[in-house]
Amino acid sequence: CMGARAWTSRVARKVWRIGADDPRKVVHGLKVGLALALVSVFYYTRPLYDGVGGAAMWAIMTVVVVFEYTVGGSVYKCFNRAVATASAGLLALGVHWVAGKTGEFEPYILTGSLFLLAAAATFSRFIPTVKARFDYGVTIFILTYSLVAVSGYRVDELAALAQQRLATIAIGILLCLGVAVVVCPVWAGQELHRLTTRNMEKLAKALESCCCRDEEDQGPTTSSIRCVLNSKASEEAQANLARWEPPHGRFGFRHPFAEYAKVGAAMRACASCIDALLATRTHTDKQSGLLRDACATVAARAALVLREAKRCVETMTASTRLLEFAVADMNTAVHELQADMRSLAEETMTSSSSSLLIMDAMPAFTAASLLVEI
Amino acid sequence: CMGARAWTSRVARKVWRIGADDPRKVVHGLKVGLALALVSVFYYTRPLYDGVGGAAMWAIMTVVVVFEYTVGGSVYKCFNRAVATASAGLLALGVHWVAGKTGEFEPYILTGSLFLLAAAATFSRFIPTVKARFDYGVTIFILTYSLVAVSGYRVDELAALAQQRLATIAIGILLCLGVAVVVCPVWAGQELHRLTTRNMEKLAKALESCCCRDEEDQGPTTSSIRCVLNSKASEEAQANLARWEPPHGRFGFRHPFAEYAKVGAAMRACASCIDALLATRTHTDKQSGLLRDACATVAARAALVLREAKRCVETMTASTRLLEFAVADMNTAVHELQADMRSLAEETMTSSSSSLLIMDAMPAFTAASLLVEI
Repeated sequence: CMGARAWTSRVARKVWRIGADDPRKVVHGLKVGLALALVSVFYYTRPLYDGVGGAAMWAIMTVVVVFEYTVGGSVYKCFNRAVATASAGLLALGVHWVAGKTGEFEPYILTGSLFLLAAAATFSRFIPTVKARFDYGVTIFILTYSLVAVSGYRVDELAALAQQRLATIAIGILLCLGVAVVVCPVWAGQELHRLTTRNMEKLAKALESCCCRDEEDQGPTTSSIRCVLNSKASEEAQANLARWEPPHGRFGFRHPFAEYAKVGAAMRACASCIDALLATRTHTDKQSGLLRDACATVAARAALVLREAKRCVETMTASTRLLEFAVADMNTAVHELQADMRSLAEETMTSSSSSLLIMDAMPAFTAASLLVEI
Repeated sequence: CMGARAWTSRVARKVWRIGADDPRKVVHGLKVGLALALVSVFYYTRPLYDGVGGAAMWAIMTVVVVFEYTVGGSVYKCFNRAVATASAGLLALGVHWVAGKTGEFEPYILTGSLFLLAAAATFSRFIPTVKARFDYGVTIFILTYSLVAVSGYRVDELAALAQQRLATIAIGILLCLGVAVVVCPVWAGQELHRLTTRNMEKLAKALESCCCRDEEDQGPTTSSIRCVLNSKASEEAQANLARWEPPHGRFGFRHPFAEYAKVGAAMRACASCIDALLATRTHTDKQSGLLRDACATVAARAALVLREAKRCVETMTASTRLLEFAVADMNTAVHELQADMRSLAEETMTSSSSSLLIMDAMPAFTAASLLVEI
């Protein structure tokens, strides 16, 4: 009993922390509840119920399935669901009409077409573009086609049914998008933007901490580097969703979300360099005083470049003069370091970390050149 | 018109290549078609139809939504769907019964409980454990609860409806699992296993090619390293699904799938080292003859260690004597290299790549020690 209570309190504390860290998650839960409550009003009020009939069920279903955390996610699912339902419904009605003409072969034709379409549609999900943008639509396509084609054999007024279903789905979608956009919207584009700037900040901090101090505080640095290295999947998912979002705030129509992926790749390359640098640091015990200072300068300037790049991304300005100054500063430091290295090539181990720093500069250059594009 | 034709042929070639590279993907499409065709038989045969009635629709829906590429994925969705439907249905019936006692307040109580439950359930999806294992179940829980609670206000014989729905979902699940397991099953555990060994092989090849030759064939090496670095997401997803699979082949009950994640992390650390090493290589133009030979030896032996580790994982044997021999070999080479470096610390740039190689050894050690556990 004590164990169970301890477990409960531990879980409760964890859940509380998730909610406290990001209150928007709690708000998201409330938004889903609100959307569902609004839909159920359709069911309870007589005149509305008589309008759409028992098919109001489909509106509820749509809201539950379509509501996502980000606006982009909701739009993606709504669009897919609407288009897939409509196209599959029309196709099924067509096939059904043709099959009806053949008389007794009807079930065979319907089952055969279902088999072929389902197989083809399922296979199409392995195509990367389809997977990224229309995965959910394919599921709904198969679902609607099989429901309409199969139930068509029994239900007579098929067209009326299909029309009713589309109407209720439209109600669900409108309600869902309305709540998602009006009540504290979470934009995937903004999330992606924030993730990118946060990662840049992390890299800059890691660079500073790994070269300016040599205390034992490597733990958080390493974990933040790992975090940057592993952010590819969430970055890609958000860029995919952000594409579906309407223009909002500073994110105009056709915002170059693909550029974020490039910046992300450059950052990961940079992170992998810093990671290797950290690993070297743990092996080298002492560094020669002179090289160490030069190293620290390069690292500090590289961090400055990163911070400047971050500021550029944050404010979405392409006035990169400050950035160029910072890069030039860093280059000077790198050249000084190289000169130092040539003149005092005594401690071999140290030079490994300095040559790594020069490599660090490269991804920063790449990032800088990409930023000019944004 | 010509442009459209070129585009079509390009897409067709791409699709053909996806199918030719992995015929199991085509088989998966056919399996989904087969399962759907089997379900639709329920609809067409009179006696079966009379048994389950119009609710046969739910069986179709279940098959479409639940069928996944791997057996683990299907089991995960089936389990979640069954448990969530049953629990939400029971809860909704209970709330409905209580609300019925209060008379005219019924709609308010139902809508209120729907709001609260949906908000709580949606928020619970942000908890990592729930997200990884029961994400789909939560969706189904909300869906079922809202359908039963809301439609309960209109439909009288609610219990019969719920029972019928459960029966058809059970039919769908059984059919789906049967087809998934019997016809060319794709096990997530095996996929994970294959991914791990393939990544090890890639690392070994990259190590060999980056140090034994210095031609211009860095392109494929870099891309394969990137591939290893980015495999975290798919690895995690498959480990999650593999946990749901029944024992099969050489994968017994409670196969340590968590170990794969550790091996994967060690491999990614190793890959990040090799990546930095490759970057250094492009900067250093020439290497001193002696150090270069020593470097090549270390790299070759490290590759041997990796290959040996791969063989161990592949055959799932814990007899790590050969692996220990290979590690010892590599250590000797590393020590020789260090001695060389101390005696001839003339070319500073070269030593950076050699000190990196020593770091390469570390993750290999980690991997080796983890492999003993498997």
